[in-house]
Amino acid sequence: MKKVGVAILGLGVVGGGVYEILTKKREFLIATQGVDISVESVLEVREDRIRELGVPAGKVAANIAEAVCNPDVSAIVECIGGVDAAREYVLDALHAGKTVITGNKELIAKYWSELERTAKTHNAGLYFEASCVGGVPIIRTLNDGVQANEISCIMGIINGTTNFILSEMTEKGVSYEDALAHAKSLGFAESDPSADVEGYDAAYKLSILSSLAFHTKVPLAKVFREGIATVTAEDILDGKALGYRLKLLAIGKREGNTVEVRVHPAFVKENHPLAAVDGSFNAVYLRGDAVGEMMLYGRGAGSLPTASAIVSDIVFAATHGEHRYATFKNTASPDRDIKFTADFSGAYYLRLTVSDEQGVLAKLAAILGKYGISIAELRQTSAGGGASKLFLVTHGTHETAIRSAVSKLHATDFAKVESVLRVC
Amino acid sequence: MKKVGVAILGLGVVGGGVYEILTKKREFLIATQGVDISVESVLEVREDRIRELGVPAGKVAANIAEAVCNPDVSAIVECIGGVDAAREYVLDALHAGKTVITGNKELIAKYWSELERTAKTHNAGLYFEASCVGGVPIIRTLNDGVQANEISCIMGIINGTTNFILSEMTEKGVSYEDALAHAKSLGFAESDPSADVEGYDAAYKLSILSSLAFHTKVPLAKVFREGIATVTAEDILDGKALGYRLKLLAIGKREGNTVEVRVHPAFVKENHPLAAVDGSFNAVYLRGDAVGEMMLYGRGAGSLPTASAIVSDIVFAATHGEHRYATFKNTASPDRDIKFTADFSGAYYLRLTVSDEQGVLAKLAAILGKYGISIAELRQTSAGGGASKLFLVTHGTHETAIRSAVSKLHATDFAKVESVLRVC
Repeated sequence: MKKVGVAILGLGVVGGGVYEILTKKREFLIATQGVDISVESVLEVREDRIRELGVPAGKVAANIAEAVCNPDVSAIVECIGGVDAAREYVLDALHAGKTVITGNKELIAKYWSELERTAKTHNAGLYFEASCVGGVPIIRTLNDGVQANEISCIMGIINGTTNFILSEMTEKGVSYEDALAHAKSLGFAESDPSADVEGYDAAYKLSILSSLAFHTKVPLAKVFREGIATVTAEDILDGKALGYRLKLLAIGKREGNTVEVRVHPAFVKENHPLAAVDGSFNAVYLRGDAVGEMMLYGRGAGSLPTASAIVSDIVFAATHGEHRYATFKNTASPDRDIKFTADFSGAYYLRLTVSDEQGVLAKLAAILGKYGISIAELRQTSAGGGASKLFLVTHGTHETAIRSAVSKLHATDFAKVESVLRVC
Repeated sequence: MKKVGVAILGLGVVGGGVYEILTKKREFLIATQGVDISVESVLEVREDRIRELGVPAGKVAANIAEAVCNPDVSAIVECIGGVDAAREYVLDALHAGKTVITGNKELIAKYWSELERTAKTHNAGLYFEASCVGGVPIIRTLNDGVQANEISCIMGIINGTTNFILSEMTEKGVSYEDALAHAKSLGFAESDPSADVEGYDAAYKLSILSSLAFHTKVPLAKVFREGIATVTAEDILDGKALGYRLKLLAIGKREGNTVEVRVHPAFVKENHPLAAVDGSFNAVYLRGDAVGEMMLYGRGAGSLPTASAIVSDIVFAATHGEHRYATFKNTASPDRDIKFTADFSGAYYLRLTVSDEQGVLAKLAAILGKYGISIAELRQTSAGGGASKLFLVTHGTHETAIRSAVSKLHATDFAKVESVLRVC
């Protein structure tokens, strides 16, 4: 029977989950997968954590070299987080020809090429299923489930913190600040929530997922990013009245050789499969030319769901014994002619205050029309004091057109644009 | 570069889709997967179909031996359907040591053990991703995405025809007969729809999926099966008023060594992810002890979605080069002590006509109570003529208890049970 000795670097939330699964399920994995996986080494400075998990003293490495160079260790699980020490340790492990499994999305998004090069040079494996959407096997699906497809669109709710906050705002009508405070109290948001709420976490994941979906490296710098901190309860409830749900979406599209990648809040029609993905759940929707529409849904974070993906990678590496996951398989003809566009097309939601005088709607429509923008849905309510509120959804248009029209409207004396949100 | 020569047996809807993808996407698969897959042989008697697809004359095999024994062919795609010729041809191919890829759920559900034995003996591969849920990689997920998990529940809408019919009945309030006629006119139901509407197709798939999920062969004969032909629009609309959607569910559960597998119509709460799976879409929901809840959603049938799964298997077999898919990996310790139960537990929906006299509800509750059944939800409307209609949903109970209670109620002079449906 194939034997795999594992070193776990970092026994935090995810590393602890990996330790727990591997120790409790050793017999189960032998019986069902035909692989004997043992934890041979852990790297962790917090002694209380080592005691809490019951790690035998003999398995605690004094330093990274001891963990990586242990001859009984063939697979290194990186659960340190961040990119400085993690990058150094992962490079060490790859240099030693060991299989590396990580869920570190920031590390992969920023240093994939370097890690891939190192892995290839030393014939080491590099697996990162856990970097995107927790335990949901989206990377396995992109690599080994939809190979026959040219994927035109991948669109996901891939950050649980922001989805929890937006769901709270939608269901309870509370403010962003109150929803964020609630998320923190439940452990769904960190004390410094900026990586989540400003969309960095989703951007890392989108860079990885769209690279795999489109068979071309999508640099992090090409991902347009807007967070949810300026979203108001008013926008959410207005959109809900029009039949939309607001989500932080990560969107990748490819048409010919043009790719667009973007993370921003967006309205989704209430009957779209993504609209029902609430709370801390995640989902990725994709469209392939053969398979059509598909969606994967599940827990995007948490100790055991993320550890489930890491253990899946350990087993996959052991049972399939190939080191393909660091690399694109199209190395013979890399896509060097990809163009990235930021002039996204789509519909837009606008909220405006307009003065309550005759002819205002006509003037508004004229300005929008000048930029080729037409109105699909419109709702008007009185704002009092000689003003009206307008909520409108446009037909399909372009980012540049909307930006020009909004700046033109700002310059008028009859309309004030209070909110602009994309509609998917 | 790895080269794979393919023979396609049968150029029907799915076989034609496979031919189309493999010929149109040969360069794409070379570039993105590093595998050169060519169609070397087809077996098809209909000359018009061969012309329609533009198959070169030199690639049309005169008989099965010519297709299977072709030295340029290493992978055989079975798209004949049925179990007689298909079984014989697949056995021929496995005997010749060739990799077999099939989407034939009936064949796998009925002859898996024989095919597996033959594949092992001749070191041949056997892949059947396309047998369940079309292009959605549910078998890849069960085998290679959730290995760390003990799966307690797998539950799916895995037959598009019945889901289309039930969706029509739910949305438009039409009868079963009208919805079936509509499904036939759109090509979503066959002229003899019994394999779909009586639940055979779903039972084949559930036997396969639950075998993989629970790491033990689940014989087709153990799958409890009830179709949708007796479902009425009244039940669907009554359930909808109580917040439920009626679906043909395939359910597999494992608790300890007890397994239950069943296909039947069931009410699902409207906020359950499966409730929103409408029309011809399919979805499989599962619960693992590490990953938690997960769902995969997509097109469960059709030419290109199913062909997408077959091509995925061809590529997977070529790039991973292992023949694991015929077998369970736990051959060292097969689960010989599995028990199958038909005494399912769960809630039930009952529709009754009761006479409009004092004390009837008390008598009804007393009979249910005798079998340990309590009422969770109740709605009463007048039926005219001294009678009332009752719609009730019970708290969790057992199949045997419900059957006994219903038979007791039938023997009374005050209540007539008109409908019994399970609630999930």
